[in-house]
Amino acid sequence: MTVRQLTLPELAEACLELGVPGVGLWREPVRAHGVEATAKLVRGAGLAVTSLCRGGFFTAIDPAARARALDDNRRAVEEAAALGTDTLLLVSGGLPAGSRDLRGARERIADALAELGPFAGQHGVRLALEALHPMYAADRCVLSTLAQALDLAERFPADQVGIAVDTYHVWWDDGAPGQIARAGATGRIHAFQLADWTTPLPAGVLDGRGQLGDGAVDMREWRGYVEAAGYTGPIEVELFNEALWARDGREVLRETAARFAEHVS
Amino acid sequence: MTVRQLTLPELAEACLELGVPGVGLWREPVRAHGVEATAKLVRGAGLAVTSLCRGGFFTAIDPAARARALDDNRRAVEEAAALGTDTLLLVSGGLPAGSRDLRGARERIADALAELGPFAGQHGVRLALEALHPMYAADRCVLSTLAQALDLAERFPADQVGIAVDTYHVWWDDGAPGQIARAGATGRIHAFQLADWTTPLPAGVLDGRGQLGDGAVDMREWRGYVEAAGYTGPIEVELFNEALWARDGREVLRETAARFAEHVS
Repeated sequence: MTVRQLTLPELAEACLELGVPGVGLWREPVRAHGVEATAKLVRGAGLAVTSLCRGGFFTAIDPAARARALDDNRRAVEEAAALGTDTLLLVSGGLPAGSRDLRGARERIADALAELGPFAGQHGVRLALEALHPMYAADRCVLSTLAQALDLAERFPADQVGIAVDTYHVWWDDGAPGQIARAGATGRIHAFQLADWTTPLPAGVLDGRGQLGDGAVDMREWRGYVEAAGYTGPIEVELFNEALWARDGREVLRETAARFAEHVS
Repeated sequence: MTVRQLTLPELAEACLELGVPGVGLWREPVRAHGVEATAKLVRGAGLAVTSLCRGGFFTAIDPAARARALDDNRRAVEEAAALGTDTLLLVSGGLPAGSRDLRGARERIADALAELGPFAGQHGVRLALEALHPMYAADRCVLSTLAQALDLAERFPADQVGIAVDTYHVWWDDGAPGQIARAGATGRIHAFQLADWTTPLPAGVLDGRGQLGDGAVDMREWRGYVEAAGYTGPIEVELFNEALWARDGREVLRETAARFAEHVS
């Protein structure tokens, strides 16, 4: 998504040129290119698929909507397995229209995980619950802190359900480092993603994630937390940013790799 | 601020008509009207001044900027006393330009409170630290949770420093009800403010606070938390909303009073 202006073949080629060893993919471009064709493309390029984004949206009350969400998530698990990644990221969903019941919505996520977790486990795919920034609590994800995500994840085996740590969402939270340690102790850090926090936020607050080094987040500090917790997995950079999308994708990828070297490595 | 389109005399008259017994004032319109003239106006109308908003912005590193901030806050304390309110709301400040040190910024707030708290106490004014929503952590207020605000407040006497509870900022936080109980137990809930959470957020995320009943927040639930914690003070409605500001101020005040009756009383 950081360089969504590139086609998947262009992305694979650019990653190879820059020595980027792996890539997190989103379902929409993968399905547009074809799941099998994408798997073949990335395998041929020697690229690891670090994660697939995203499943989730489990908070509906209507039974038919819940059944559709579970069906879609089973497809996402199968797509992840076909792409050769062991990690499916989950954005859990916001409040249904007219509801003010955050607790109830969180319980419905647990209900969905109870069905989806074993299915994912059978496919060798781990579900990574992402705590989203509290500004998304109403309309996107009722899990706003790592503590809340981990409270849910710990009801299930670690090889079925863990959490994703994204600096953009948790950088403000002085409880997050402790939760990262807690997650690491049971092997539940299933993904680690970077984006910087820059202001002012754009309308809708979706596409304002900052390039590494441009904002308030100390990337090395957070890398230190996950590594101290035993995390040895990939580090993904996930920027949704209109200004970056408007530029040449290869140039943005080159800049991002340089920023990664400067602020993370 | 909810009806900033009204002059202070218009506001006082409209409050009387609607039976609104008190009003929280902001410093800018008060100073424009004159502090003494405002005090006389609200006294004459029989209106309580429930709070003065706002002091704060304590996070600068530069000594001259810090001294200026303290001077300004002393003036704010004096203005609060002159207006006859015992509560000054504090927005603590964000990260200084180029800084990524949230912890250091929070400590500088404590340093300022150590000077300002006794001064406020001498004037019969309580400082109310407001935890602002985490989306303001970088540029407006490094205190993002009631727990953080209370950790700071508890270093000082309760009649000098407490917290403000604003539903807009804390509604997403499942730790907030427990922190409200903690604050109440030591008499540190110095203000209680309402605004609803509506989406999508506008650019800059400052002026999108929802009218009571329009969003995700259960107002009675939060009123219940502060009352269970022993709070008996005023309940303020504080909406920053371009759409409300564009309408007739008396009509907005009437609507707000009706929403208060429907969703809070």
